[in-house]
Amino acid sequence: MLRQALHEIRVATRGRGLYEFTSKVADWVSQNNFTSGLVTLHLRHTSASLLIQENADPDVRRDLETFFTRLVPDGDPDFVHTVEGDDDMPAHVRTALTAVNLSIPVSEGRLALGTWQGIYLWEHRRSPHSRAITAHFVGE
Amino acid sequence: MLRQALHEIRVATRGRGLYEFTSKVADWVSQNNFTSGLVTLHLRHTSASLLIQENADPDVRRDLETFFTRLVPDGDPDFVHTVEGDDDMPAHVRTALTAVNLSIPVSEGRLALGTWQGIYLWEHRRSPHSRAITAHFVGE
Amino acid sequence: MLRQALHEIRVATRGRGLYEFTSKVADWVSQNNFTSGLVTLHLRHTSASLLIQENADPDVRRDLETFFTRLVPDGDPDFVHTVEGDDDMPAHVRTALTAVNLSIPVSEGRLALGTWQGIYLWEHRRSPHSRAITAHFVGE
Repeated sequence: MLRQALHEIRVATRGRGLYEFTSKVADWVSQNNFTSGLVTLHLRHTSASLLIQENADPDVRRDLETFFTRLVPDGDPDFVHTVEGDDDMPAHVRTALTAVNLSIPVSEGRLALGTWQGIYLWEHRRSPHSRAITAHFVGE
Repeated sequence: MLRQALHEIRVATRGRGLYEFTSKVADWVSQNNFTSGLVTLHLRHTSASLLIQENADPDVRRDLETFFTRLVPDGDPDFVHTVEGDDDMPAHVRTALTAVNLSIPVSEGRLALGTWQGIYLWEHRRSPHSRAITAHFVGE
Repeated sequence: MLRQALHEIRVATRGRGLYEFTSKVADWVSQNNFTSGLVTLHLRHTSASLLIQENADPDVRRDLETFFTRLVPDGDPDFVHTVEGDDDMPAHVRTALTAVNLSIPVSEGRLALGTWQGIYLWEHRRSPHSRAITAHFVGE
């Protein structure tokens, strides 16, 4: 018999960068004895993203940041929406280039992530924020 | 007891730009008394995208358009696939850089969107189109 | 009565490029008599992507490759993570710019894809790999 569950996850950020929260999702799965099914995460913001990326070498996260900062520079003179700061519109663009949803199957009681995959909140604003993620599970 | 539903949503576009259709999804949720679960949207095209973005200041949509037009210019001389118009291959690239799927939890009878989040169809072609989205719901 | 299923899909790649595997997903749907519901695919790697794109003119795939190679060049001197090869960090960036998840509704016993939509594994590394995708189905 299939069942479902909803859960709220909070991630506190200290400015721009990638914050891993894999364990918060994995703990929710194990505490509820979800054995198989699908976890979907939805980030309720427009200036941060959800990303699955390599969790081994921290240089990967540094290089991701380097690339996106170069591709979408703060203070872009072509942008009109500047009232919330010169990093706000770049944050919206970075969100559009990435994603605010992730879906991860659960198999044999565990998230079916690859060996090197971690789940990250990518904060695109330079100031600290408290970010809200709604998690949904359907399965057994 | 979990149930599911499928639904077809149509969005008429008048050329390149972001078209909000949050109310079409929200109306489907309320008319069917979905109280909790997951809505998934799939856009059945390769030259338009689905995007969750800020629905407050229209300048955000204008700046998104400015950025993507600059990043993926029409008439790129490196492109070979030009028979359908000089905006066709850029439309495919813009689709690859964004997404054709979205998943939004439903909680307490409402889409669990953030305060500033709207659901948009991003038309990447310059001419008007009628775009088809298949919506799926699983939950209660 | 809703049911669910999990399935493992393997795609062998011969270096960078787009590999269609729509039929592997469609066969799974038809062999299990899934009539309506939702298929979710999750790629368990951080240097390849899942993409829905046009399956008609192969020039579209060539131009996608041209664009991404130009946007994220191999051997970028700003990258620090280079120990696994000069195409490794670009592969992570290309994965961040695209997606590792896809969700496709099933309606009347078939994937609800548009006429021109195919499901692709986008290999971002230059050497061959065996890529693992976990598929989940919920529905009837």
